[in-house]
Amino acid sequence: MLDKTNVRKTLEAVKSEGRTALTAPEGKLLCDAYGIAVPDEGLATSADEAAKLASGMGFPVVMKIVSQDILHKTDAGGVIVGVESAEDARKAYDTILANAKQYKADADISGVQVQQMVPGGQEVIIGAVTDGSFGKLVAFGLGGVLVEVLKDITFRLAPVDKDEALSMLDGIQAAEMLKGVRGGDPVNREALADMLVRVSQLISDHPEISELDLNPVFATKDGAIAADVRIVLDHDQPAPRHRPSQEEIVTAMNKVMRPRAVAVIGASNEQGKIGNSVMRNLIDGGYNGDIYPIHPKADDILGYKAYKSVKDVPGEIDTAVFAIPAKFVAGALTECGEKGIPGAVLIPSGFAEAGAPELQDEIVEIGRKYNIRMMGPNIYGFYYTPDNLCATFCTAYDVKGSAALSSQSGGIGMAIIGFSRSAKMGVSAIVGLGNKSDIDEDDLLTFFEQDENTKIIAQHCEDLKDGRAFAEVAKRVSKTKPVVVLKAGRTSAGAKAASSHTGALAGNDKIYEDVFKQSGVIRARSLKQLLEFARGIPVMPTPKGENVVIITGAGGSGVLLSDACVDNGLDLMSMPDDLDAAFRKFIPPFGAAGNPVDITGGEPPETYANTVRLGMEDDRIHSLILGYWHTIVTPPMVFAKLMVEVKEEMAAKGIEKPMVASLAGDVEVEEAAEYLYQHGIPAYAYSTELPVEVLGAKYKWARGAGLL
Amino acid sequence: MLDKTNVRKTLEAVKSEGRTALTAPEGKLLCDAYGIAVPDEGLATSADEAAKLASGMGFPVVMKIVSQDILHKTDAGGVIVGVESAEDARKAYDTILANAKQYKADADISGVQVQQMVPGGQEVIIGAVTDGSFGKLVAFGLGGVLVEVLKDITFRLAPVDKDEALSMLDGIQAAEMLKGVRGGDPVNREALADMLVRVSQLISDHPEISELDLNPVFATKDGAIAADVRIVLDHDQPAPRHRPSQEEIVTAMNKVMRPRAVAVIGASNEQGKIGNSVMRNLIDGGYNGDIYPIHPKADDILGYKAYKSVKDVPGEIDTAVFAIPAKFVAGALTECGEKGIPGAVLIPSGFAEAGAPELQDEIVEIGRKYNIRMMGPNIYGFYYTPDNLCATFCTAYDVKGSAALSSQSGGIGMAIIGFSRSAKMGVSAIVGLGNKSDIDEDDLLTFFEQDENTKIIAQHCEDLKDGRAFAEVAKRVSKTKPVVVLKAGRTSAGAKAASSHTGALAGNDKIYEDVFKQSGVIRARSLKQLLEFARGIPVMPTPKGENVVIITGAGGSGVLLSDACVDNGLDLMSMPDDLDAAFRKFIPPFGAAGNPVDITGGEPPETYANTVRLGMEDDRIHSLILGYWHTIVTPPMVFAKLMVEVKEEMAAKGIEKPMVASLAGDVEVEEAAEYLYQHGIPAYAYSTELPVEVLGAKYKWARGAGLL
Repeated sequence: MLDKTNVRKTLEAVKSEGRTALTAPEGKLLCDAYGIAVPDEGLATSADEAAKLASGMGFPVVMKIVSQDILHKTDAGGVIVGVESAEDARKAYDTILANAKQYKADADISGVQVQQMVPGGQEVIIGAVTDGSFGKLVAFGLGGVLVEVLKDITFRLAPVDKDEALSMLDGIQAAEMLKGVRGGDPVNREALADMLVRVSQLISDHPEISELDLNPVFATKDGAIAADVRIVLDHDQPAPRHRPSQEEIVTAMNKVMRPRAVAVIGASNEQGKIGNSVMRNLIDGGYNGDIYPIHPKADDILGYKAYKSVKDVPGEIDTAVFAIPAKFVAGALTECGEKGIPGAVLIPSGFAEAGAPELQDEIVEIGRKYNIRMMGPNIYGFYYTPDNLCATFCTAYDVKGSAALSSQSGGIGMAIIGFSRSAKMGVSAIVGLGNKSDIDEDDLLTFFEQDENTKIIAQHCEDLKDGRAFAEVAKRVSKTKPVVVLKAGRTSAGAKAASSHTGALAGNDKIYEDVFKQSGVIRARSLKQLLEFARGIPVMPTPKGENVVIITGAGGSGVLLSDACVDNGLDLMSMPDDLDAAFRKFIPPFGAAGNPVDITGGEPPETYANTVRLGMEDDRIHSLILGYWHTIVTPPMVFAKLMVEVKEEMAAKGIEKPMVASLAGDVEVEEAAEYLYQHGIPAYAYSTELPVEVLGAKYKWARGAGLL
Repeated sequence: MLDKTNVRKTLEAVKSEGRTALTAPEGKLLCDAYGIAVPDEGLATSADEAAKLASGMGFPVVMKIVSQDILHKTDAGGVIVGVESAEDARKAYDTILANAKQYKADADISGVQVQQMVPGGQEVIIGAVTDGSFGKLVAFGLGGVLVEVLKDITFRLAPVDKDEALSMLDGIQAAEMLKGVRGGDPVNREALADMLVRVSQLISDHPEISELDLNPVFATKDGAIAADVRIVLDHDQPAPRHRPSQEEIVTAMNKVMRPRAVAVIGASNEQGKIGNSVMRNLIDGGYNGDIYPIHPKADDILGYKAYKSVKDVPGEIDTAVFAIPAKFVAGALTECGEKGIPGAVLIPSGFAEAGAPELQDEIVEIGRKYNIRMMGPNIYGFYYTPDNLCATFCTAYDVKGSAALSSQSGGIGMAIIGFSRSAKMGVSAIVGLGNKSDIDEDDLLTFFEQDENTKIIAQHCEDLKDGRAFAEVAKRVSKTKPVVVLKAGRTSAGAKAASSHTGALAGNDKIYEDVFKQSGVIRARSLKQLLEFARGIPVMPTPKGENVVIITGAGGSGVLLSDACVDNGLDLMSMPDDLDAAFRKFIPPFGAAGNPVDITGGEPPETYANTVRLGMEDDRIHSLILGYWHTIVTPPMVFAKLMVEVKEEMAAKGIEKPMVASLAGDVEVEEAAEYLYQHGIPAYAYSTELPVEVLGAKYKWARGAGLL
């Protein structure tokens, strides 16, 4: 249906002429080929022809002189708008020609362009940009100066399907404008979505289209038409990035992350050396596979027979951990290649991050040559707790669980380790990615997706070397396991200088924001959120619906918890009358049912138990938020233990719902919160926000995964 | 200069006619009286008169039929726009009259209105609303449907001065639009500010003006003119609220908060009773004043002689703490009044919050009659640590310090107590306000303002009974002591149904947002922020300028700290070359100077010390944010102690700057953070956001107080 051949021919012609910007007729040709509505137009070389053309496309029309000698058409009297009839078109033709000749007697005149006038309506922008990491993106926003000022624009990876395109119309702040305000007509959403789909197809089919603007597009209740088309090409296409298949990644990553044997290159008996710390962590961590220390001279390191080179090791090795200076890495890596070792963990720094990109290029080449998957360089290593594997120089970590975390930065990795240990967050893996010369976030996602020990993946990153690959993998993985990402450098640089309108609006972070959402990724706003989400999300069951109910002893907490629900996109269920009456049976007359259910502060433990039991048992309620108020009548640990009892009683009946708690009280609430958390109820002392943020993140995931 | 008499006469006339909406001429009269530019206009009763009027005001003009029998002027052919000359005005007059007669032959025609046509320009809205708590507010936003959709509007308490009015132009998201975009002219800011000032004066002088819309106002580079005026009156003015003078408040509050003698009404020997807890807290807390238990039968309570009534007590009593059921409060309060006790702490619940407003009205009346200042009812009581006073049934609290906190809700009060104890936050007072029958947030502000033991005031509230009084007091107090407020119920109800445009845009929370800012109040977004701000702000010195520098061991923390600076409105100083060079002397060649200064992870303690010393000593730097990375070379407590040493070394030289720290590392960083905090450096483990939020809050205060 789409006339790709004609487009290709045009683009090749433009390239052969050494141009990067398309002319208006070329732009129209591309639009026509892809069914993107632009005003009908034609070139008339006589007054009669002008009248005929105009009659064919329907009035009103606008007429413009076409002459390479007349650049400022309006100044030359070469433009007449609002031509309403065939007779007027004839007259206009003659007038324009006369004006043109008077303006420049010897002008070479090609004729007069006759163009359909657009019908007005809501101005919108549809555009496309090419991002270094994400590739082709389609963009949508309202037209006009104000939107430019407010930068209210939304992006999606191209190509988009109809549903994604429709989601873009709701993805701007001013979305309401499209629905018809003050009695105005709503725009034709189908027509706009269709145009977005077609634009996304055009740029995806023809990668040299680097920027595209349809601006303005006039959207009415009947349809959408692009009044102006601007297309810019970039003839230098980057070489496609090397991407192993999913199967290859799974096979290789399983070897790297779950090796049967590990070599430590640069193992040492000397305390304080990285090679000593790595050896001790492997041994003390309880790793069950073979450990081969590699050292040029030693015979024995920490009781293990040492070898001069990996090539001297008799058995197979899956992963080699490097603890040698940068300048020796390439040599040792080549030996790994010759030995057929599939994985290398490159702890050393001194590569791209230290101004030595050539050293990094060298190891990338070696890795590719021997098909070695490489983690790092410039990392702390990694932990994989199910196999008691601590392939790192940091302290050993042993709280097993289901959260897999990674960080681009070593400092953030240390914060992950400290928080995990302090909060008793069960972890399946902690991985340092550092310079990401090879293994990156999407390789980890692919591994953790099939890792039965991992239930949630939380990643800190500063950039994505291949944002498109990440998004594709994340979209798949997030369907079954929550993916949380803290993107650092959020607020730094804006978009690179761009020649198009859409390009200039493409703040880098807005692209991350929209693509993460498109890919089902839960975005953490802070390091704290990354950590708390990783801890809290896997603890809770998946909600079966949107109805959230707050049950609180402290009215004041109820108000703040309600605020937090709105902030985190949670729906406070409007309480049905029968349920309201049922709650009221358990609470004092001056309490309040509705939502929040305010059981009041002086109540005994049973009031919490009764109301929470009711909340769990009623099918219309899908999640509970508890607000506890520390009193003598219901001390913190009494509350905590009772809540866990109720939860377990319900679970025995097959009833499971997410439950979070906010605890207001004296310091004893800290112990109670800890107890609740360890028993499947994310709970926080002195905070009404964190429990709701964690529940909100669980909902974001469930929605993105299509489970709600 | 302003013609108030004429306005008053008009408003009285409208009232006497039983109307609430002003006619267009009445609206114009008010605007003219206050120098608010509206189009010139006049009524012509002949063609010649129309020509003369039009010539007088300048062309173009718009002409409209004036007849009480013709409501739909346009349908009747009664409106002609763009009249360009005297001759045209004559013709237009005749045409309009002819059309009108044809439309309705027997219409009673007053004449033809001739009105100056406005020159176009940027459409803005200037309006005013009356808020139940804040009273008169003036509003400003851009005109047009889009802004209505985005609700981009800003409010200030009326009247505003010129500077406040100018701040409104920068107070909207789309502020850039006023500066001229895409080569357009900027608007005349002076003219807009002047109009805001005049509108604010008009509504302040005439309280019955409940709503006012100038919409649209056309703003150009030359001036501003309101094309349409809409004014609504409310003739029922509320009785002014009883407000003691500042001196009276200070005198009374000092008695309530720092009593020389306390009576406990309902004191009890029985464990578990509130009256027993209060007695024990007073005694165990170490209160030095006299304690008088009041009990109908007991002779002695916890070793203190008991009395049947406060009236039987021989000595003077400053504060009576009530621990009796609601129904007995009025009687006991009357006895307090007869005894001349100036303060009552009403712990009991069972009043307005429990559906018994009449009980509350009764005690308010008694309190007013005897001039008793009352705290509560429905509260936990209060703590004033400098006097070892725990007038509460909660656990005793003893970490003395300079933060005064209050909460409207008991649950939040308990969270304050727990957090304060856990975080070792030094506190001067914790106060429960509950139903706020009398003492409210501004009474507390007024007391803490002059309380030498308090350096910061942090308040949780759900509403402000007198927002205007609060704002006035807060504006004064915040000049010397930071005021932090957590306003709960942020996201709940919007504005009440309003008949005006501005009224409909007046989301309740936006008013709080803007008025808090106008009053120098630091708004906490969460309970956690309220608590952390209260803890962190008084610990740091006031910054002397906006230049913030990040010094970090972890590059990854540096990026996240930079993000947080942008989020919290902090200026990362662009590093001067000489300073860059000076920093480079201390850091490895692959580190990065600039800002953040990345000293890299493997550095010894001295590198942190050297760079921080440099940051402290250079006058161009005003605040430091430290990013620590846990390594073997520089363990957490070594870092913490060294930083405190440097801080104290600098303080000895008279150099004091705010410094905060983010610690990434294993669990030992928690102890280090605690040590830093206790020594004047707010520090957080596993968080890059909190330290920057706390520094940002300090800056917000310093800016609001005019210290920057």
